Parts: sequence; structure tokens; C-alpha cells
Amino acid sequence: MPKITLLIHCPDTSGIIANVTSFFYKRHGNINYIDQYVDLENTVFFMRLECEFTAQTSISNTKEEFKETVAEKYNMSWEMYSADAKPRMAVFVSKYDHCLYDILGRYKSGELKVSIPLIISNHKDLEQVAQNFGIPFYHIPVTANTKEEAAEKQLELLQKEKVDFIVLARYMQIIPKSLIAAFPNRIINIHHSFLPAFAGAKPYHLAYKRGVKIIGATSHYVTEELDAGPIIEQDITRISHSHSIKDLILKGRDLEKIVLANGIKYHIERKTLVFNNKTIVFT
Amino acid sequence: MPKITLLIHCPDTSGIIANVTSFFYKRHGNINYIDQYVDLENTVFFMRLECEFTAQTSISNTKEEFKETVAEKYNMSWEMYSADAKPRMAVFVSKYDHCLYDILGRYKSGELKVSIPLIISNHKDLEQVAQNFGIPFYHIPVTANTKEEAAEKQLELLQKEKVDFIVLARYMQIIPKSLIAAFPNRIINIHHSFLPAFAGAKPYHLAYKRGVKIIGATSHYVTEELDAGPIIEQDITRISHSHSIKDLILKGRDLEKIVLANGIKYHIERKTLVFNNKTIVFT
Amino acid sequence: MPKITLLIHCPDTSGIIANVTSFFYKRHGNINYIDQYVDLENTVFFMRLECEFTAQTSISNTKEEFKETVAEKYNMSWEMYSADAKPRMAVFVSKYDHCLYDILGRYKSGELKVSIPLIISNHKDLEQVAQNFGIPFYHIPVTANTKEEAAEKQLELLQKEKVDFIVLARYMQIIPKSLIAAFPNRIINIHHSFLPAFAGAKPYHLAYKRGVKIIGATSHYVTEELDAGPIIEQDITRISHSHSIKDLILKGRDLEKIVLANGIKYHIERKTLVFNNKTIVFT
Amino acid sequence: MPKITLLIHCPDTSGIIANVTSFFYKRHGNINYIDQYVDLENTVFFMRLECEFTAQTSISNTKEEFKETVAEKYNMSWEMYSADAKPRMAVFVSKYDHCLYDILGRYKSGELKVSIPLIISNHKDLEQVAQNFGIPFYHIPVTANTKEEAAEKQLELLQKEKVDFIVLARYMQIIPKSLIAAFPNRIINIHHSFLPAFAGAKPYHLAYKRGVKIIGATSHYVTEELDAGPIIEQDITRISHSHSIKDLILKGRDLEKIVLANGIKYHIERKTLVFNNKTIVFT
Repeated sequence: MPKITLLIHCPDTSGIIANVTSFFYKRHGNINYIDQYVDLENTVFFMRLECEFTAQTSISNTKEEFKETVAEKYNMSWEMYSADAKPRMAVFVSKYDHCLYDILGRYKSGELKVSIPLIISNHKDLEQVAQNFGIPFYHIPVTANTKEEAAEKQLELLQKEKVDFIVLARYMQIIPKSLIAAFPNRIINIHHSFLPAFAGAKPYHLAYKRGVKIIGATSHYVTEELDAGPIIEQDITRISHSHSIKDLILKGRDLEKIVLANGIKYHIERKTLVFNNKTIVFT
Repeated sequence: MPKITLLIHCPDTSGIIANVTSFFYKRHGNINYIDQYVDLENTVFFMRLECEFTAQTSISNTKEEFKETVAEKYNMSWEMYSADAKPRMAVFVSKYDHCLYDILGRYKSGELKVSIPLIISNHKDLEQVAQNFGIPFYHIPVTANTKEEAAEKQLELLQKEKVDFIVLARYMQIIPKSLIAAFPNRIINIHHSFLPAFAGAKPYHLAYKRGVKIIGATSHYVTEELDAGPIIEQDITRISHSHSIKDLILKGRDLEKIVLANGIKYHIERKTLVFNNKTIVFT
Repeated sequence: MPKITLLIHCPDTSGIIANVTSFFYKRHGNINYIDQYVDLENTVFFMRLECEFTAQTSISNTKEEFKETVAEKYNMSWEMYSADAKPRMAVFVSKYDHCLYDILGRYKSGELKVSIPLIISNHKDLEQVAQNFGIPFYHIPVTANTKEEAAEKQLELLQKEKVDFIVLARYMQIIPKSLIAAFPNRIINIHHSFLPAFAGAKPYHLAYKRGVKIIGATSHYVTEELDAGPIIEQDITRISHSHSIKDLILKGRDLEKIVLANGIKYHIERKTLVFNNKTIVFT
Repeated sequence: MPKITLLIHCPDTSGIIANVTSFFYKRHGNINYIDQYVDLENTVFFMRLECEFTAQTSISNTKEEFKETVAEKYNMSWEMYSADAKPRMAVFVSKYDHCLYDILGRYKSGELKVSIPLIISNHKDLEQVAQNFGIPFYHIPVTANTKEEAAEKQLELLQKEKVDFIVLARYMQIIPKSLIAAFPNRIINIHHSFLPAFAGAKPYHLAYKRGVKIIGATSHYVTEELDAGPIIEQDITRISHSHSIKDLILKGRDLEKIVLANGIKYHIERKTLVFNNKTIVFT
């Protein structure tokens, strides 16, 4: 039987939940999950709902009806996904392999419900890893003079492969505006600090210098401002004076892997909404 | 304007959310918060809802109507609380003072929205602490021969003071069955281990002996079986070989304080439901 | 039998450990604890050692001999404390009471091995709390025009009471340079963020605005640059989109209490050394 | 220049540290790291030391001298390792691949400083993974009737490949006594609970049934009693009522990977000592 996930945000007013849930009830939909949140400051209502229909139902018809009878009435921004649809994910890498190994291990074992049609890298180092896991690898070098050209090639490949979202698995290049514009809130980066501390380059070096007692990692959607996009997930680990920069880099790897993997999962499972440069994550 | 919290559990079927939310919508109720959970194994539906009415509303009438038009239809177990109602909490202590200081500090600073009409203890040691915070203190000794008598005195005091629930802040006596029966799922205990590990006496000694690398604390509702009631909250802290039993006891104190305080808060805020000796905690 | 704690730092070279430990061995000292750390970047050696003598020993003689036979040879900065000596701690507060309640509760239960000769505040609000715990309270208002005068009064009181170090338990005033100079690396502040993120005023508001998924607290020694002194301890807690600023403030209180208490304990137990605006904490 | 790691335990008495450190000082050894611990209950002294020699030094001579001049005097159990020696690690698996992917990813990226001469499995499922990473894979089926025969084959392979220690990466068979005896405190298992809670089979199912709010994982040395060997490392993650058994299994995978990897690292880096069925881990 068909199953959908619905994401909504709209101006807050009374009756939204009653109207939305009644809509599905009348169409033989069994609501398995509902979560909502009201941003009181901006009076915006957010909602995530999973519904399983007890009879054959056309999802495109349901969408049409939802739009006409509910969504327009409340001026909603909304998306309805079929639970069957498997998102198509591109992975960008440079030379570090730990996040790539982690993602591909999770993918192979069925933990990440995505397709991975391609891996793109500005270096050739990880080509062999891609091959071991049977995933097409494209080497697109990026130099000061070839940035635009590279962006065009990347975009072309992504469109050809019908990619839904991009994961930057320690990709060490600034993402060009054109790519960000083509994938708004659909490029996930892992930054190796607990943002907003230590944004920019070499966060472990800065953490060492400042003498912090915890280090962190942050997965976030990429926006034009560097390391300032909506945060999806963060985690930390304790360190002490006895850890060298090399130790921080090593300890940080596990953080990066898990924080990135969780960010990807929330995105795949349609658990994230973005508003005002912040995420609502319905876990 | 009146504000209520509704807690429900009932056999799972479709339409419950739509019916409940429509009920409040029709009565000018604005739902600020809704959370639900379906226990698929037992097909039981659980829900917590906060509703603020935009017009003067009689809560007792609302209860009556809810019962007739919704609750009976779905065979619900349910409770509707006015947000104004401040629960009355009794605290039981013995000789350890850290949890008591913690609770009373939070109470004085307004963090715990309760009344504390009395503190009961089987020892006199903490009478002065109670006096410093201006709370009546009752010394009810418990010996092998006076258990029943003590239980009767406790119950009498609790009923006289219209106590809603009891907190055992490191109270070192087994709670008699009569008291448990009078306060079902309304006695909160703090146990100084991550249950089910190290149930019973001297958990820190057992943890030391086993050589664990983490210790924990657990707040739970008291049932007849010792340390086996529904778990409300748990937390842990890391230890190493270098920590003595005394160190574990000291490190555990902060865990006990926080895990108990969180358990109390969830209870006060009507965030807990109990089913099958487990809690649903809508945080 | 006498017991000492020794803290050392000096240029790194070989033989230091052998020489120091032999020094105590020859004087019937049993080393219970030794920890060391080498800052390879700056080639500085740090060490903490606890030694219990098996015969009556004059600590002042031991100090004199240590200076002559070991310390001068290796050009050491060092301090030797008798384990009996109880440090004298002043507490500065403003209006928030949670850290004060926490510190005084730990003090009363014997967890903090200090004397607290006085509490100083720029407001009268917490006078009653001080009285309940039987600690002298001094109200020294601080206004734009009376800063210097207030600093003089504070310093006079602190010197009269032979205070060893100061704890700022959410004291909401900038500490004047004269006070910092009089207590170098002996003023402990609690800042309600994971520094260096959200230094300065209103960190919870900034954390909310940025949409972080974790909040933190930091205890550090006070230096002239605001919130930039050597970090002693940090901890964090998870939050989500659903937490308001008020929730963050409330959740942060437990962090502040524990992180400050741990910072105080490390200081009291002579576990901290400061070098290059960073701490070495021998836990 | 040669570099060694020394691990010691012996009856506690005064002068051990002075004698050991002087031993190296006199032989042009620069002590980079020293950590010690005294088990006061059993009056046993434990120590770990790293020493770098500033002149060419024969490690076998040093061992001989250490034995004669220090070790025998204090009745020490001790081991001295050359920092160059790379331990040889066998991996046992069954059908779960997440720990294997994790270990091999860390191995390939140079994080684990070991050789992996072979992978042994009672199933053929993961043969392809082993091949992708270029590691010999041996399929040794284990049935009720072939246990002894299988153990012999395993032992033969392990000895032929000069294996130093074994990692059970979710290997779903009881290890025979003969193998445990051949590798005392040198077989590392990952158990998917915070031991001693939920020892034995199906810990996630038991955790779900008990309604715990945290789940854990434990890496430990294998002894004859199931899941009761010395604990090396533990970690936990929070869960809620909303997590199904399947969710626990999924969330637990990350725990298992990290807790096993840390256990392996501590072992490889000679940071663990075992005494009285507990570990001393000098991190």
C-alpha cells in the first residue's frame, strides 16, 4: 500500500493540524507519525507527517487534492514524498578517505537508503576506493583558472545523473555559487569543529591553540557564506592538554564520520526543514 | 485564557488524531504542542497534546464533552490537566543531602513548578536543611518492627497534605506495598547505577569490582519489584581504573542529582505515560 | 604523616623524573601519584606528584632542599603544597542563585575542601542565601562611577580575609585589572557557552539565533581579555529546534553548575598548571 | 634512535619509580611518557613508560640489564616492546559487516598500526569484502559436531601466520577454551550492551523490553566465562520510547564500531594491563 511523508511550513493559525489530519483520515490514510513545531517568534508552523494508506491511492491525485483543499487555504510551503522514492546522492571528495569509507560502508550494508550514481573528486587519490565499491568516479581538477569550467562539468554530470543532493565528504574546495543555487539546501558539508567556533580553515589547529577541552564536528547545508549555513547535526568529544594536533585530527575523524552520516540520514528520511538559516530536524 | 495538557492511550486505530484535534479546533482551542507514539507490537496509541483556548472555557465541561464525544468512542485511558494546577510533591530522605540540596535549590529558584508541603525522613540529620528552606520536616523512624506503623504515619501525612507524588531523594528504605498501591506510578526513585546493571544495594561497589568504564544513574517509578520499575531517565559518566569506590560515589552524586531532577521535571510537566512497565516520555 | 603535592614546569631535558623521584625516595617519601606532560612545541616539561612521607618531615626544610638540589638545577617554576592546607575561596555573585546554591551545597556536604570566608555581591538579592549557609555577605555596589572604589573595597576585604582564589559564580561585572593582577590565574569564571563560540554577552541568545544543536559551558581563569583566559573545563548538552531561549537558559544552568564545580575542584586539588594561556589539567 | 614501551606490575613499595627512571636516565634514555597507578586494595603497582634513547642501544641488552638490576629486585611482571614492532592481528567475522568495514577502513588509512595477515569466518558472506581490501580470507564452518576440528584449524592458521592477537568483529560463535588458553588477554570481543547489563544473546531485544533510555557497547578481553572478561572500553548512546528494536540495532552499530576500534587501538599501543579480571588502561 502507498505510503507518504509530508513536510509543511506555513503561517501559524488554529486548525491546521485538525484540517491536515482529517484530510488523510477521509482518504483511508493511517497516520503513523506526526510531529510539529511552532516558531513563536516568527509565528510559523512546521509539520512532518507519515501516512500509510489502507487502500490503493494515487499519490499524484492526493497531491493535487491536498493542494486544493488544504495547502492553498493555509498558504503552505509543502512537499509530499512517496516512501518508495530513493534519493540520488552524489559524493564529492578530495584526498581524505575516512568519510568516504564510512559512507560507502553504510551504503553497502543497506543503512543509507540512496542511490550513489557518482563520486566526483578534484584529485585521483580515491579512484581505487570508488572502484572497489563499484561506483563511477569522475576526476575534475580544480585550479584557480579552471573553477568555472569545473563547476560547469560538475553541474552537467549531476544533472545527467539526476542527482537529488550532494554530500561533501571532506571536499577541500569552495563550492561555486552556481552549484549552490542549483542545489539549495541540498548540499551537505561536514565541518570539523563545533560551529560557530573555528569556522574556516584548520579548525583543529585553532582548537589546539585555544586550549579547548572539547572538539566537535558539524554537518550543515551549504550556503554562500562559508561554514555559516543551517546546522543539521553536531557532536563533540573530550580532549585534554596531552593531545597533539595530530591526535585531534585522529579523534576528530570518528566525529566527522558520525556527524556527517547522521546529517545524511536525516536528509534522506525527509526529517529536515530549513527556515531562517536554521534547521528544524524532526527526529 | 485556560490552557490544558491532555495525555491519552488507547487501542490504535485510524482517525484518532483527526478526531482529537478537531474536538479542540471546534472549541476555539489552539494546539501548541502535539506528540504521539504508536507501540506497534501491542497496537497501542499514545498521545500528548497542549491546547490553549482563545475564549473563556470551562475545563470541567471540556472534560465531560471530551469523554462523551471522543474518549469513550476510542476506549481511551486519558487525563486532562489544567496548566495552572501545581502538583504537590513530598520528598523522602535519609542521611545523604546532595539530592535534597539540589531539589530545594531548584525549587527556590522557580525551576520546579511544584509545592513541597513536607519532607519525611527516617533520620533527623537533614532537619536543619529543611528548616533553612522553610519546609516542614517529619521524622518517622523505620525499624524492623515499626515498618507498618511508619507506613501508616507516612500515608496519613501524605493524605492530609494532599500530596500528588513522592520523590525518594536517596531514601534508604524499601517502600511498603501499601504506599506503592496508594501512589501507583507516582513515586520517583533515584538509583545510583545504569539499571538493569547493579540493581540492589551498593551499586558503586559492584561497578568498581566489575571494572566498568562508565557509571550511571537511573530515575524510575517505584513498583513492588525492587529497582525494576519503569525507567524515566538515565545518564552516565566515564570513569577509569584510577577511580576508587570513593571517587565513584563522588562522581555519581552529580549524575544522581541531574537524573532525579529531570525525572521530576518530566513528571511535573505531565510528559510521562506508563505502559507495560515502560515509560513513554514526550520530551 | 605529612603529605605534599608538587607542581613543576621547566625546560624539558632528560633526567628530570629520575632526579625528582630520587629526591623523595631518599627522604622516605612514598610517591602515590605522578603525572607528567611534555609540550613538544615549546619543549617544556610539566609534572604533578603526590608524596606521602613515612617519617616525620619538615615541609619547609623539604622545600629548601628541593630548591637547592633539584629546582635550581633544572630552572624550575614550582610549588609544593602541604595536603593539610585548605585554600580560602571568595565567591562573587550578582542575582542568579543556581551556581551559588550548588557551590554552597557541595561545600556543606564536604565535597569542596575549602574555607569560604566571604561572599561578595553587587546586589543584595542573595544575602539571605548566604545567611542560610552562615557565610558573611558583603554588598559592594558597582556603577559606572564607582568601579575603582568598588575594586579597592573588594581587594581590601580579600586581603583581610587572606583569600587564595576567587570564584565568579555568574558575577555580572567585568573584573578590574587591579584585581586580576592581584590574583593571576586565581580567579575562576563560568561562561555560559562552549568558548570560543559566543564569547561576550548573551551567549544563549546567540546560540539560539545560530541554530546550534549543542550548547555548552566553560570554566576558565580570568585574564584581561574578556572570555579569553585559559580554559579549565568544558561540557555540553544537546538541544533541538524546539528549545526556546528560555529553555536554553534553563538547560544551561545544570551545565554551568557542574562545569564551574569541576573547575573549582581541579583548582583546589592543585591539578591545574597554566602555560601560554592554556591549562594543563592532571586529572 | 630506538624507542621502547615498558609495562610493569609488581607489589607496591617505595622507590620503584625512582629506580626505574634512573635506570633509563643512566642509559641515555629520554622518558617521553610515564603513567602509574597503585591498586591500594591489593597493594599492586602498575606503570607504563615510553623511552627514546639518544644513542644506539641494543634493546635485547637493555632487557637483560633491566631484568637483572630492576625487575628481579621488585619482583616485577613486565614487558618491554620495541616501538617498531607491528603486531599481527587476526579478524574473526560471521555475517555482520559493519565492524569489518570499519576496521579495514581504519587499517587502509593507516590509523591502525597492525598487520592483518588473515580474516577467518564461519560463513562465506564476507569473503568479497576481504578480497576488496586484499586480505586472505579463510572459511572455517563451525557446527555442533565440528567445533573441535574448527578450533584446531583456526589455531593452526593463527600460529602459521604468527598472529599476536585476535579481534572478534561480531563473530557469532563461542570461542573454544583451547583458543582462549593460547591467546590469554589477547582476544578482543565487542559486546553490544553496556556490560554487565544484558550479557549473553540478543542484548538489544532485552534493552527494548526493559525500556532503558541508554544503550551501550563494550569491548573486552575474552575469558572462559561468557561476556565476563576484563572490560577495555565502553560507550553509550541515548534512545527513547520511540525507537524500535530495529532502531536500536542500527544505532548500536556506530557504538560497536567505535568501541571496538578504541579497544583495538589501546591494545596495539600497549596501553592495557590486566589484573584481577579488570583492565588498567593508560590513555
